[in-house]
Amino acid sequence: MLKKKSKYIVAIVGATGAVGREMVSILEERKFPVSELVLLASDRSEGERIEFDGKNRSVKKLVNDSFHGVDIALFSAGSEQSLKYAPLAVAAGAVVIDNSSAFRMDDKVPLVVPEINAHALDKHTGIVANPSSSTIGLLMALKPIHEAVKVKRVVVTTFQSVSGTGKDAIDELAGQTVALLNFKDIEVKVYPHQIAFNCLPHIDGFLENGYTKEEMNMANETRKVMEDDTIRLTCTTVRVPVFRCHAESVNIETEKELSANEARAILAKMPGVLVYDDPSRSIYPLHLDVSGKDEIYVGRVRADDTVKNGLNIWIVIDNIRKGAALNAVQIAERLLP
Amino acid sequence: MLKKKSKYIVAIVGATGAVGREMVSILEERKFPVSELVLLASDRSEGERIEFDGKNRSVKKLVNDSFHGVDIALFSAGSEQSLKYAPLAVAAGAVVIDNSSAFRMDDKVPLVVPEINAHALDKHTGIVANPSSSTIGLLMALKPIHEAVKVKRVVVTTFQSVSGTGKDAIDELAGQTVALLNFKDIEVKVYPHQIAFNCLPHIDGFLENGYTKEEMNMANETRKVMEDDTIRLTCTTVRVPVFRCHAESVNIETEKELSANEARAILAKMPGVLVYDDPSRSIYPLHLDVSGKDEIYVGRVRADDTVKNGLNIWIVIDNIRKGAALNAVQIAERLLP
Repeated sequence: MLKKKSKYIVAIVGATGAVGREMVSILEERKFPVSELVLLASDRSEGERIEFDGKNRSVKKLVNDSFHGVDIALFSAGSEQSLKYAPLAVAAGAVVIDNSSAFRMDDKVPLVVPEINAHALDKHTGIVANPSSSTIGLLMALKPIHEAVKVKRVVVTTFQSVSGTGKDAIDELAGQTVALLNFKDIEVKVYPHQIAFNCLPHIDGFLENGYTKEEMNMANETRKVMEDDTIRLTCTTVRVPVFRCHAESVNIETEKELSANEARAILAKMPGVLVYDDPSRSIYPLHLDVSGKDEIYVGRVRADDTVKNGLNIWIVIDNIRKGAALNAVQIAERLLP
Repeated sequence: MLKKKSKYIVAIVGATGAVGREMVSILEERKFPVSELVLLASDRSEGERIEFDGKNRSVKKLVNDSFHGVDIALFSAGSEQSLKYAPLAVAAGAVVIDNSSAFRMDDKVPLVVPEINAHALDKHTGIVANPSSSTIGLLMALKPIHEAVKVKRVVVTTFQSVSGTGKDAIDELAGQTVALLNFKDIEVKVYPHQIAFNCLPHIDGFLENGYTKEEMNMANETRKVMEDDTIRLTCTTVRVPVFRCHAESVNIETEKELSANEARAILAKMPGVLVYDDPSRSIYPLHLDVSGKDEIYVGRVRADDTVKNGLNIWIVIDNIRKGAALNAVQIAERLLP
């Protein structure tokens, strides 16, 4: 918990990135009690100006003593920066909410989706981690199902947008698309292959076992957030030529039976989940529709008869918002006394 | 079997479509013994000219007596046209190889992937059906695994390109993309939602059980082609903003154990399959790379430890080529005496 104050000094590390900017908006939207907002980024972005609370604020260069007096530091600048600066922020007295993968599987670091395991925050020792955006989307839907009928096994395939990689990737998709439509040569820099009009079954580095880190993270983070080591999850993560939001095709096997209608009813009661499921009217979650939304959308809910107690669902999450910035701010809210 | 002749009169119904044009090319490439090529299409395309064997040939309007003297009729003009004209072609003495879904589950119609079940052709009564392109891609990989260790259950999620819908859909993806990049309004006509920079978990119509026809077709066609009703398959089919080829994320549960290395070795021996699997060098099947290829590509082969004898693979097939035109011509080749 934070000390009781009327307002708090909040730092955002990676303030000029897509997630950092969204954090600024969300703090304002949700009227988080901010006395001072410290915007931090690499020297490349030093001096950029970002509006908060009606005023333009200047982005400062992230340095070792950036965190003097800071109460809450929201990190979204990649694992390397988190590993280097999060401990310094904690030493300076701040609580860090980290959006990178650096500390997610650290036993001393709670990995939190507030709607699911806010209680884990009680044990934090300075750093709290956000799960990956795909994991957050998945677990928001899996949690109420798990509570009702116990999830045994999950097979996930993701459709992840380029904004999950960052601003350079957004530029690369747009740039390649424009070039191709003008019959010009494309540049391939951020991804190992062309992303425009193509799908890459490759997110983050490959491990010895043939899976990517992203794929193993989803399995490991799921067990940690759900606090249940018996949940088995296998995953294929795929980058698609879409700018924002991640979709997930999810096959679930449960201990007890759950009809599609029961699943919809259970999901509809989960805070932060919107059941968006009326195929007869072409209503199902889409990357485009979920962009900018706080809720994760779930649709295509249907029984899978190929296994005892099977269910298929289709999830879309705004990876920048609930998948990152919003989840971090919600954690900060829960830390308020 | 066809009667023994030195050359055959071949008709292509839907000659101006993407699959029809590919059929023309493939007949030429593979030196199919064609004495006369009859190009048929709707009156909209009447008079268009298509090159075959060094000569420009005129497309004729499809009418009831288009099939007089025709030995082999390759249909790719949609179910409605197949239902109406295939029986007329058969009555006129032709063997029909149909690319639509009209006859696929008809007990009197063999559903054939030549590498898998060419023997089923022996029992044809005038019409032979091509499976859907996603099914062909899946089964080319599944068959050798099934032979080796028996496939029990399959969970598939597809990434299908717009060329599977047809030329209008290709134009719609291109047109919407150009409009969006020029900040103009987009037109949504072919699909119920914008396809540019978006993914639609909706291919073909929805059924009562919440699945699309495409999803149920994959399950039903799999059992028919594999001649094994015990194979359980559940499926989520998704349209992605890609022009050509379909990708499939496939989770397989088998009766007996099969390591990833054994699976690669078995797949490599299957005619028509290329194992393309070296993640350390960013080598895995991509829509872009498989475009124009005869082989289906398989990669991301890895064990799935969340189930006894589990395996994950990633398949890409050129839906226009092996998924349609090539498979049809291969069937015609097998029908030659």
